[in-house]
This record gives sequence, structure tokens and C-alpha cells, in this order.
Amino acid sequence: MSYNDRAYALFEERQNERGIRLDEVKAKLKALKVETPSWGYGDSGTRFKVFKQAGVPRNAFEKFEDAAQVHKLTGICPSVAIHIPWDKVDDYSKLQQHAAELGVSIGAVNPNLFQEDEYIFGSVTNSDPAIRRKATDHLLECVDIAKTVGSRDLSLWFADGSNYPGQVDIRKRKAWMLEALTEMYRALDPNMRMLIEYKFFEPAFYHTDLADWGMSFNMANKLGPQAQVLVDTGHHAQGTNVEHIVAYLLDEQKLGGFHFNSRKYADDDLIVGAHNPYELFLIFYQILDAAADADAGVRATADQIAYMIDQSHAIELKIPAMLRSVLNVQTQYAKALLINFDEVRDAQEKQDVLAAEQAVREAYEQDVTPLLLALREEMGVPADPMKAYLQSDYGSGILARGKGGASW
Amino acid sequence: MSYNDRAYALFEERQNERGIRLDEVKAKLKALKVETPSWGYGDSGTRFKVFKQAGVPRNAFEKFEDAAQVHKLTGICPSVAIHIPWDKVDDYSKLQQHAAELGVSIGAVNPNLFQEDEYIFGSVTNSDPAIRRKATDHLLECVDIAKTVGSRDLSLWFADGSNYPGQVDIRKRKAWMLEALTEMYRALDPNMRMLIEYKFFEPAFYHTDLADWGMSFNMANKLGPQAQVLVDTGHHAQGTNVEHIVAYLLDEQKLGGFHFNSRKYADDDLIVGAHNPYELFLIFYQILDAAADADAGVRATADQIAYMIDQSHAIELKIPAMLRSVLNVQTQYAKALLINFDEVRDAQEKQDVLAAEQAVREAYEQDVTPLLLALREEMGVPADPMKAYLQSDYGSGILARGKGGASW
Amino acid sequence: MSYNDRAYALFEERQNERGIRLDEVKAKLKALKVETPSWGYGDSGTRFKVFKQAGVPRNAFEKFEDAAQVHKLTGICPSVAIHIPWDKVDDYSKLQQHAAELGVSIGAVNPNLFQEDEYIFGSVTNSDPAIRRKATDHLLECVDIAKTVGSRDLSLWFADGSNYPGQVDIRKRKAWMLEALTEMYRALDPNMRMLIEYKFFEPAFYHTDLADWGMSFNMANKLGPQAQVLVDTGHHAQGTNVEHIVAYLLDEQKLGGFHFNSRKYADDDLIVGAHNPYELFLIFYQILDAAADADAGVRATADQIAYMIDQSHAIELKIPAMLRSVLNVQTQYAKALLINFDEVRDAQEKQDVLAAEQAVREAYEQDVTPLLLALREEMGVPADPMKAYLQSDYGSGILARGKGGASW
Amino acid sequence: MSYNDRAYALFEERQNERGIRLDEVKAKLKALKVETPSWGYGDSGTRFKVFKQAGVPRNAFEKFEDAAQVHKLTGICPSVAIHIPWDKVDDYSKLQQHAAELGVSIGAVNPNLFQEDEYIFGSVTNSDPAIRRKATDHLLECVDIAKTVGSRDLSLWFADGSNYPGQVDIRKRKAWMLEALTEMYRALDPNMRMLIEYKFFEPAFYHTDLADWGMSFNMANKLGPQAQVLVDTGHHAQGTNVEHIVAYLLDEQKLGGFHFNSRKYADDDLIVGAHNPYELFLIFYQILDAAADADAGVRATADQIAYMIDQSHAIELKIPAMLRSVLNVQTQYAKALLINFDEVRDAQEKQDVLAAEQAVREAYEQDVTPLLLALREEMGVPADPMKAYLQSDYGSGILARGKGGASW
Repeated sequence: MSYNDRAYALFEERQNERGIRLDEVKAKLKALKVETPSWGYGDSGTRFKVFKQAGVPRNAFEKFEDAAQVHKLTGICPSVAIHIPWDKVDDYSKLQQHAAELGVSIGAVNPNLFQEDEYIFGSVTNSDPAIRRKATDHLLECVDIAKTVGSRDLSLWFADGSNYPGQVDIRKRKAWMLEALTEMYRALDPNMRMLIEYKFFEPAFYHTDLADWGMSFNMANKLGPQAQVLVDTGHHAQGTNVEHIVAYLLDEQKLGGFHFNSRKYADDDLIVGAHNPYELFLIFYQILDAAADADAGVRATADQIAYMIDQSHAIELKIPAMLRSVLNVQTQYAKALLINFDEVRDAQEKQDVLAAEQAVREAYEQDVTPLLLALREEMGVPADPMKAYLQSDYGSGILARGKGGASW
Repeated sequence: MSYNDRAYALFEERQNERGIRLDEVKAKLKALKVETPSWGYGDSGTRFKVFKQAGVPRNAFEKFEDAAQVHKLTGICPSVAIHIPWDKVDDYSKLQQHAAELGVSIGAVNPNLFQEDEYIFGSVTNSDPAIRRKATDHLLECVDIAKTVGSRDLSLWFADGSNYPGQVDIRKRKAWMLEALTEMYRALDPNMRMLIEYKFFEPAFYHTDLADWGMSFNMANKLGPQAQVLVDTGHHAQGTNVEHIVAYLLDEQKLGGFHFNSRKYADDDLIVGAHNPYELFLIFYQILDAAADADAGVRATADQIAYMIDQSHAIELKIPAMLRSVLNVQTQYAKALLINFDEVRDAQEKQDVLAAEQAVREAYEQDVTPLLLALREEMGVPADPMKAYLQSDYGSGILARGKGGASW
Repeated sequence: MSYNDRAYALFEERQNERGIRLDEVKAKLKALKVETPSWGYGDSGTRFKVFKQAGVPRNAFEKFEDAAQVHKLTGICPSVAIHIPWDKVDDYSKLQQHAAELGVSIGAVNPNLFQEDEYIFGSVTNSDPAIRRKATDHLLECVDIAKTVGSRDLSLWFADGSNYPGQVDIRKRKAWMLEALTEMYRALDPNMRMLIEYKFFEPAFYHTDLADWGMSFNMANKLGPQAQVLVDTGHHAQGTNVEHIVAYLLDEQKLGGFHFNSRKYADDDLIVGAHNPYELFLIFYQILDAAADADAGVRATADQIAYMIDQSHAIELKIPAMLRSVLNVQTQYAKALLINFDEVRDAQEKQDVLAAEQAVREAYEQDVTPLLLALREEMGVPADPMKAYLQSDYGSGILARGKGGASW
Repeated sequence: MSYNDRAYALFEERQNERGIRLDEVKAKLKALKVETPSWGYGDSGTRFKVFKQAGVPRNAFEKFEDAAQVHKLTGICPSVAIHIPWDKVDDYSKLQQHAAELGVSIGAVNPNLFQEDEYIFGSVTNSDPAIRRKATDHLLECVDIAKTVGSRDLSLWFADGSNYPGQVDIRKRKAWMLEALTEMYRALDPNMRMLIEYKFFEPAFYHTDLADWGMSFNMANKLGPQAQVLVDTGHHAQGTNVEHIVAYLLDEQKLGGFHFNSRKYADDDLIVGAHNPYELFLIFYQILDAAADADAGVRATADQIAYMIDQSHAIELKIPAMLRSVLNVQTQYAKALLINFDEVRDAQEKQDVLAAEQAVREAYEQDVTPLLLALREEMGVPADPMKAYLQSDYGSGILARGKGGASW
């Protein structure tokens, strides 16, 4: 038997003993879909410098080509989020067809309301009604695009806020936010969702109109069942227990999706799972716990979470960085699937602090490499997607695009 | 003319020019009530050491005597919050009568659900139903006490949470919290309020069942109009924009009250306004802005806020520390009353960032000493309450109580 | 008597009573110099968007013209920091002459080691010796420029760091940093200083080679007396007691200067004193305390501090924003000069916590407007520099420059 | 072959392939020593409540008995830190003999300067010279005790600081700190060390005399080679890169030891490695990197680090919580030993961000269970120390001690 086969056999033996059924684990891993963002393949950076890389895609079509590579190598990234107007094209059916030929599809539509000069003091919450109108029209345009391309989800992040006390009327802006979102909500088809993001700070440095989960949640509650909250893992105050928020929103049936990335300080937008990987595992622990809830609504919410990556590679090669993120998501999800929930609940009921902690932690400590190798073989993708990419000539091929591709 | 008279005349001239009517300002200052907490007069400290001070009150009756001093000297602290069981007495009518004779009354009732051995893993969210029952019964007991002593408000802070991932079932505890609060809510008389506090961390170091305003707000929404949120100024993550939360809750008509204190790091529970006093001013700015809202419900919410102090004097003399806190609240409130709101709104509409910031800031930069001296004269309290206290023999008189008084 | 005269008379009476001699206060206020940065007049923003403003200077000469306005109106900004290569000119004597004609001079020289493609993984700490050489050469070039233009100070901020664990050899980079700084130090003339800045994070998101005051201080110690630490008020972890660091560095005779700005979250680079103004006052309190130290070296250190502004106006008009910052510095310095240090020390010796705090705080609560009006009259600058600017036609005149001026 | 044998064989095969020699790894793991603190076996808690547990040791002798259990079961905890006066005994030779009979020895001596009434405003930095004298005498007493019991290390944590601006003279206290430490330093035998701890905040809430590594490092530099810095993993601002500080101090040959614990918020003092376990691994990565430095002094510093646990179990059973901490330290150290440093350095030199990160991360992802099982068999300790403890009757035996044992 090869090393890998022996390793898998041993892994299986161990998990059986732990009461984990690998067939179920694999089925769930095969069902995992992680959407990558078109803008994650372009140049980006910090306010100090955007380092331009050779090979960066020059338009939406090339972004989809890069994204398709990630899907081809991992098998779990079949859709690509788009950002309007960055990915605006004359004919979306051409982009759809291009995507289809590449084996992927268009995912969430992301309006952009922070890069036009008129939005210097806000978009949908600007005190100037004409600017609010323009911003709301853009939201409606994005709904139309989503209908055109068959996207279910609209991901909404607003940079709106202020830099100084007194600068704006906080409560009026709250009303204007609701006004714009309400108009957008009414434009949705019944199967569509609005995923409302929040952010602790940046680019607004005093107040942000949607500053935390509570503000997004409250908006979503006022709007209705098609509005849910989107959690970006980098958008919280230091120390915030993100998995608690995840559990809370699941319980309220209001968690719609994630923008995954990692950070050590602020919204660093680094490779998912690179900093404090345990947090990512604990997020999946809460999701899997909710996915087995007695309440069908909670279970359905957990099942319909949109897992999306949103990161910004300032110094990394774009495609490998995206691969690493996707693989890290898969790894932590796999580990969370190895939690013996009966054991956890039993220890919780006995109020045995150490046993409960250990029951969760034990799964995290498993090396899931044998499992993932077996899984990838079954899925018909390379055993080591990163290595396969680096050995392919895709990376060298795109160098012909030159420098100066898409960026934000 | 005396210095003070000249200073007041000059101050008045300035404020008239700024468009501020001092008669209205004074009327509002006279209406300001700040409740002091019975436990703020006792010994307290950190986990490392409680330094016992001579003169600390030995029981609820003596706490009211000290609190009455603060009211006598400031004229704005007519009520005293109590903590059950710390202030439990056999006959509340005696405590009421004692308070009345001292010129004060019993204010908010605060249940204590964190100091009994059974609460080691939680009170109303404990996985043991018997402990939840006991905890809920204590809440109901406090409602009864509130009815007995004629208190409108119950201030609810729960230490409940966990220290480790996996230790508890976060979502079940959310349900248990709602269960207990619902039972308590039903016991309220129509005029009573439940003020639900939240806290970022401590004493729970992984998750806290009510961790932020959003969780308290959601609970209050589920319960009904008599449930509102209580903001403790020290219970947030570093960097949190507290005044934004205040504005938000006011707009939702769900801000019930404050536990004022100041902090630099965690829940330091220091003298109000001692650290970053501008924040306290900005909180009052948002309150005054809401108090002039077009919506009667928002206005009423602003008017009915319970201003309460909750601090913990580890190294300070208790009564002077409380005086300082009360005076700092009054000072920042006075400054906020000097904001020319028309000017602010005008600059906001013009999106003139610097003018809007300046319109708010200008009020903060005023020295309100002449105003407060005049006010105190009109109110018949000492011009300098702190000095008056230090010159009185109250402080030396209570030394006879010795060391080892009440503490927590 | 005019209102202002009466206000000043009253102010003087009050300060005399408090034991403060206004002639000394004014002399110190007249001696205060605040350097403004050339780059503070150009466009800047966040990674999301740089909003281009009409009227922004197009080159170093125009930046000096704008800076000269700030000096003309305030009388305390006679020098302008330059950034190389942003302000590189063919003939520095022309820039010097231009500055002199405008009534200002060239201040600190700031090397830029973060905007060339080669610095993607670091400049002086890059593992590639050729890049380190290039970066060090740039430092030496800046020393030469400083000699040419007669600048005493070189302000050194390094963006160098890493984004991921393992990415770099932290200890080797420490050695390379010392190597480069040593070479630069040797190039200094005896009267020159190297001011070494540090930063908690950004643009590096895992580790920054000079991450805190301790690292800059250690470097400065190894280099010698001409190397000192530069404190940027926005470069610390949340909650950091900046004034403690200031006091500490003064005591070690290693505080060389400040980059003033304010922030609520990260390195927000907002108008100085706009957020938590009390902190700025407390910094000056520590400086004034050290300026009266028994040790001549400590006193000299306090006297030679370079006060510089470093901020980034994303949404504000540049010149008014700079004026506001300068005026805020002057205001808080004026307040700190009103501290009765004898009273503070007396209370400290008695370990009277509340009296000591109050002695410092009392000065902060003074409204120094009458003092500053009198001062400005004596200095021959407008009583209200902001108003004077807005009423002048300078702001409209520069609109002819159009949009698209200098930025970073 | 048993499951464990097969698992080990497979593990060995994998590590061989990765270029890791398990014999060396095991030798290093056998050399790892983790000191447990006597006070970690007693009752402790938060300022809100200390939950008294049955079975807690009542005196120093019983604490050593509990600590000996941890050593017996793990084989890596041969010494026990003591806290004076908590562990003060009339005759230290008896305690030494007791320890020896239990198979352990007395480790670091920890003075306590925060629990006497006189220290309310500071100990060695108190403005009262009599209190400073008393505090310094206690330090000298602890040096004597260390000599008596043959301890090499004195661990020094000072709670000294202030709660309010102005309360104290920060710079004078700095001088007093140096004065006391100098006197202590002179009393050391040549083989002894002073390990100087620092803390961001608590119990002081405005400034702490030794607030960060820079302040401890500066003190240690002034004192001499026998003074080094002690890093408590919970004593930093949120977001601080602790492993960077570790690398920095190692490079300066000034890292003396650790107080291990984990935290999510402030100084939570939780089980080591329970929160963000990756950080613990990254600390060991830096230590192992330094242990192979070209400089013999750096290598020696890395080799002589005192690994000590300092945590506070509010809700956990004391001995199991300590076991878990010790095992977590061993686990992360084992993982760090699996780093292929050649690979890391190679990727670093190529500036291949993703490969370098991956080379470090790969080691973290290994499941070291087979290694640790084999190691424990070789060391003659139970394969699962926690299980062995829970199955033993030690835990039930100590219940006879009752409630109300030692606490702080």
C-alpha cells in the first residue's frame, strides 16, 4: 500500500473509533462551495502603495479565467463574485457564456458605492438627495444585473460614515440607509437575497453607518426575510468573538454569508486562515452545530450560507494566494466535521469545562491531509492543488498580459 | 461686582452672542438627575486586592447616608440604586423612610446573579434548570422589591458566559436568557422598565451571553416596550464609538439608561469623565440632538433616560470620588447644552466638515464654571460641592465606622 | 472696554489667583513652533479612494506657498517638512529662496522608502543586499539634501515588515536595520539628528521591523546621541498610554520629535486634537513637567523637541484642515501651560489622588480663547486665523491649479 | 502492530520525508521543562467572585503535593514556583525536603508587592520612602529565600502604577524603580537572575510603571547581564505581535523566561494554548530559530529560558487545568520542532511569501499525537496524563481538604 493509502486507512480507523463517519464527512466536503471574488485576482494594496504585478487580468473575462483555474484545481469554487462597475460589460450573456465555457458561473453581485467623487461624504446616506438617488439607482442597477446573470445574492458593503464628531447627522443617515435598502429590497425577485455587510471602521474613521452586526441585523429585520447579514471576518473590533456573532445570527435565521479573510490588526484582508486559524475552525463549529438544530429554519439558514472570499493581496501572487485561502477554508471545515457533537453536548450538560473544550479541540488537532487527499482523488482534482498550479504553465502564460491590469 | 458675577455676566454675553439662551440651559441643568449606586460607597477593588478603607458604610442604611451627602451637596442625586442581596433588608419601608428623611429615595433595583456558588457556570443561562429557576426567581424577587419600594427601573447585568470554546451551547443559552427575561417581563407593572445591560467581557473570558448592544437590543425588542437597553460606558471593545450606539438606540426608542464610569483599558470603572472626557460630552450631544427630534417617541425616550453612575473606587475616597463623577457629568451636560444645533445642522447640510465639527467642538471648549456657580446658587447648594464636603466634618465623622464595611 | 478686553482681564485675574503668570505663558506660546508637512497639502486618502481636490498644489513650490499661508495666519509654523522624492527639485537653493521669500524655511527631511516596486518586501531590511544598498543610498542622499538645505532633522519612517508568520527572518532584519541606520548616522554632521519613528502596523500586517517605541529607542541607543525617537500619535495599539511613553523617552533624553495627528481606530491620520483632545493636553503636561526637571539633559531634550504635523486629509480642505490642527496644538499647549505644577506636586506627595488629578484637569477646563486672542494680537496675526483664511481669496485663487495636483 | 505503533511508524515515515529527525526531536522534548506555579493550585477568580473549590491545597506543602502529581504524570514539570509571602514557611529546608520526596524542587521565587495595605499607591515606586524601603526589603528577603532554597530565578511583577492623569510623577517613579531593582541586583549571587515582567494594565488603569517589554528591557540593560525580561503572554495590548517581541529579546540576549497563559481579551489568565494556539507555536518557532543562531550568546539565551506557567483558574478544576496547560505547551513545542528550518530559510531568501509561510505552517498542521505517545512511553509516564489523572484517586482523595484552601 502506498503511504497515502496507509495514512488514509489509519485516519479512517481513528475516526471510526472517535465515532465519525467519513462517508458523511466526505459528502459534506464535496458539497462545500467557496466563491472567489473577481477583484481578488487584480492588483490591490494599501494606501501607501499598490505594487503592480505582471500577469494580472485586464478585464472581467480574464478574471474569470483565473478564477476558473482555482476551481479546476480545487473543485469547490464554481462561482465568481463580481463588482459593479469594475466588472461591468456591455453584454452579460457573453460573460456568462465565457464563464460557462470555463466551468464556472457568475456569483454574488457587489455594488460599488465608494469610488466616485460624489460619494466623498457618503452614498445612500449622503445628505444630498441627488446623490442618494444616484446611489440607490446603482443598487437597483445591480439588482437588474443580478437578474440578468441569474445571481441569487447581492452583497452590500457601504463605506458610508464620517470622520469627525458633528460632521453628520447620524440618525438621519440611519433613516436614509433604510430608505435606500427598502427600495432595493422591493426590486428583488422572490428567490433573491440582500446580504448586508458591516464594518467597524475604514474608510470612515469616526462613525460608520453600518458599524457592527447589530446594525446590519436590525436593517435586515426591518426589510424582511430576503435580507440577511454578511459577516466579513476582518470587520470587527480587536478581541471580538466572531463565532459568537455567527451563532447568534444563525439562531435568528439572519446569517446570509461570509466574506472570508484573515487579519491581525484591522481589516488587513490577508489570506484566509493565515492568522489565528483556530477562529476559522470555531466559526465552522458553530455553523455545523446550527446545521443540526431542532428548528428547520435554523438548519436551512446554515445550509444556505454563501461562503465567499474577500481579500486583498498586496504582496502575494494572486492565484496562489487564492488557492491557499480556499484550501485553508476546506481544511478547517474538514476539521470541524470531525467534531463528535454528542461528546461535546454530553460534556456541556455535565458542565465539565475541560472535557467540553477538549471534545471540540480534539477535532482541530487532527491532521486532515489523508482525508483531503482521498477526497480530491474522488473529486478528480489534483491531490495538491497548489503544487499542481505551480507546476502548470498557467502562471507563466498569463505573464503575457503584462503589468497594469485591473486594480482598485 | 464680585469676580463670579463678572464672570457670569461675561459668560452670558458670550452665549447670547452664540445664540444660546441661558435660562433654558439652566432649566435643563436643574432637571438633570444622576442616580448614585449604593455599592459605590463601599469597598471594592481588583482581583488582586481590595483595599479596605476606614469609614465605609456597613449596611444599606449607612450607604444611603453617604449618598444623601452627595445629593445635599450637588442637588442632582435624589435617588440611590440598590443591589440585591447586598442591600437586602428585612423591612424596606424602614429603608424608604430612612431615605426620605435624608432627602433621597430608592432608585433602580439591581439583581445580583454572580456571587453565589451555584452561578459558577451561569445563572439564567445555566444548563441546569434548577439553577435557572433559582436565578429567575431572584429576578422576580427583585421585581417585587421594586414594587414595594416604588422603583420604576430594574437594571439587569448578567455575568453569564463561558471561558473556552465548546464549553457551552451558545444558542441554547440565548434561548434560556430570553426565557428568563420573558418571565420577568410579565411580572412588571405597566409603569416599570427592564434595562438590559451588555458587556464585552469579564468575568467571562470567551463569550458573554449579552456581549454587545445588539444582543441587549434584540432581547428588548422581543420582550416589548418596557424593555430597553442600558449602556455602561466601560463595556465596549477598544475604539468602539459609544455615542453612535447611543444615537442608534435613541432612534429605535430603546435607550433606557446609562451606567456611567470611565476607562482607559477594559471595564476599569473609574471616575466618570476622568478619561477621554470628550466622549461623555459627545454622548450628551447625541442625546440632546434626539431630544429635539421630530418624532415624539424619540423625544420621550431621550427624556426618560435613567442616568446612573456605576463605578468602583479601588484607591479613591468613596464620597469625594462620587462627587467628582457627578460634577463631571453635570459639567459635560452643561457644555453639550451650549451647542448651537442650528449651526451644526446648517454646516451638516452644506457638508462643511470643518464647520460642523467646529460647531460641536466650540461648545466643549467653553468653561462652564460661571454657569455652574450661578446654577448652584439658584439651587441652594454649595458653589464648590467638593470643597464643601472636604471642609465639612462628615468625612471625619464616618471614620467611627472603622474598617471592614460593605464590599463586593 | 471691548468684550475681548474684558474677557482677557477676567482671564488674567483668574490665572493670577491660580498662581499662573501670563507673561511667562505668553512667552512660551510665542516660542512654540509647529512644522507642517509639504505632503499634508496634497491629495491623499484611503486604499479605497483618493478624492482629488481642486486647488491642490502641483509641486514643491506650490506646497510651500500653501504652507506659508498657514504660517502667515498663525505665526507659529515657520518651517515645512519635505518628503524625498515627492519634493525633489533640481535646485534646492531655488526652493530655499522661494521659501524664504514666503517667510518660511525647509524643515525636516523625510526619506521615502515605501513607494518603489523594489521595496515590496522591504527596503533597508530587504533580504536582497542590492535593495538594501539602494535604500541606504537613499538615506544618505537625504542626509546630503538636509545638509544642502540646512535642515537639522531627518525623520525616518520605515514601512518595512511582513504579512505572514515565517515570511521573513525577523532577527536578521533587525540587524540590517541597524546596519543601514549606522551608515546613515555616520554621515550626519554633528548638529544633525536622526528621528526614528515606529508604527504598530500598516502597511505591514504581521510584523513591522520598528513596531514600537522600545524598538526605536533601542536603535537610537545603539547609534548615539544624535539619534532619537519620533512619536507619531497615531502609531500605537489601542489603549496605549502615549503620554507615558513621552515621559519615559524624555527621561531617557531620547525624545526627538512628534508627528501629530489624531485617530480613533488605527493610523487614521485625522486633524490633530480632533479625537480625545485630552490626550494631546496630557502629552504637553508631561513635556512641561520634564522641561522643569532638575537634570539639564532632560530639560534640553524637552526644549529641543521637534513638533511636526503628519496627517492625511481624505475629505477635508487641505489648508483649513492644517490650520485647525495647528490651532488645536496651540490650544492644548496653552492649557497645559496653565497647570499649577506646585499644586500638582504637592498633591502627589500627599498621595491625594483626587486633588492631584484635579490640579491637572483644572487647567484643561480653562477656556483659553481670551489668552489666544491677546497673544495673536501681540504676534500680529489674525485673531481668528481660520476665519481670516476663509475670508481671504487665497482659497479661491488656488482653484486655478485645477484638480490632479500632488498626491501619494 | 497496534494502532499506536502503526501511527508512529507512519508519522516517522512522514517526518523523515520532510527531513526531520525524530531522535533529535524527542531529545529536545525530553529536555523541555515547564515550571508550574504554587498559586495555580489554589483558589482564584475575578474581582466579582472567587468560587471556592473543595480540595484546594491549604498550604505550601499541599501545593507541592498537587504540583508533584502534574510532574509525575507528565515528566516535564520538575520544579514549582513559589510566591512570598503566600508560600512563606518557617523552615524552608522542610519544604525543600518535602519537595524532594515528591520528586520536585523549588523553582523561581516570586515576591508579592501588591497585597499589603501600604501598597495602595505603589510599592517600590511609592512616593513615600518608608514604603519603598519596606518594598525593597521584601525584594531582598526574596533574594535570601532564593539563596536558601537554591533557586536561580526571581520573577518580578510589579502592580505599581496609577489610575488617573496627574496622580503620580511618572518619571520619579521610573527612578525609584531603578533604585530598588539596583539594590536587589547587587544582592544576587553570580549565578542568579532577575526576570523583570511587564504588563499593559491591571490593576493600574492609567499607567503602569513597567508597562511594556521596552520598559523592562531598558531596566534590565541598566542593571546588567543577570537581569532579563520575563514575557507573560497575557500582558500585551490587543493585536500585539508577541512572537516578534520574543525574537527581539532573544536577539538582545535579554529574554529570561515566560509566564505562559492564554487570553482573548485582557489578562484573562486562562489555560495555556486554549485561545489562538497558533501564537504559542509561533513563539516556539522564534525560540528554535534563535537556538540555532550563529551567535553563541543568542543560542545560550534561548537555551536558558525559564518556561513557567502563570494562570488563574476561576472555574476549572485546578490540577486538570494545569495538566492541560502543560500538555498544550508540550504539543506546540513538538510541532515547532517539526519545522524544516532549511526550507523556511530557503523560501525566505527567495522572498517566496507563500512558500515561507507554508513551510512554517506545515509543521503546525501535523498531528503530533503519535510522537507524544511514543515519547511518554520512553519517559515512563502515562500515555494520556489527563486520563490517568482522572482515573486515579488523587482528585477524590484531596476532597478531604474541604473548601477554603489557599487563594489570593
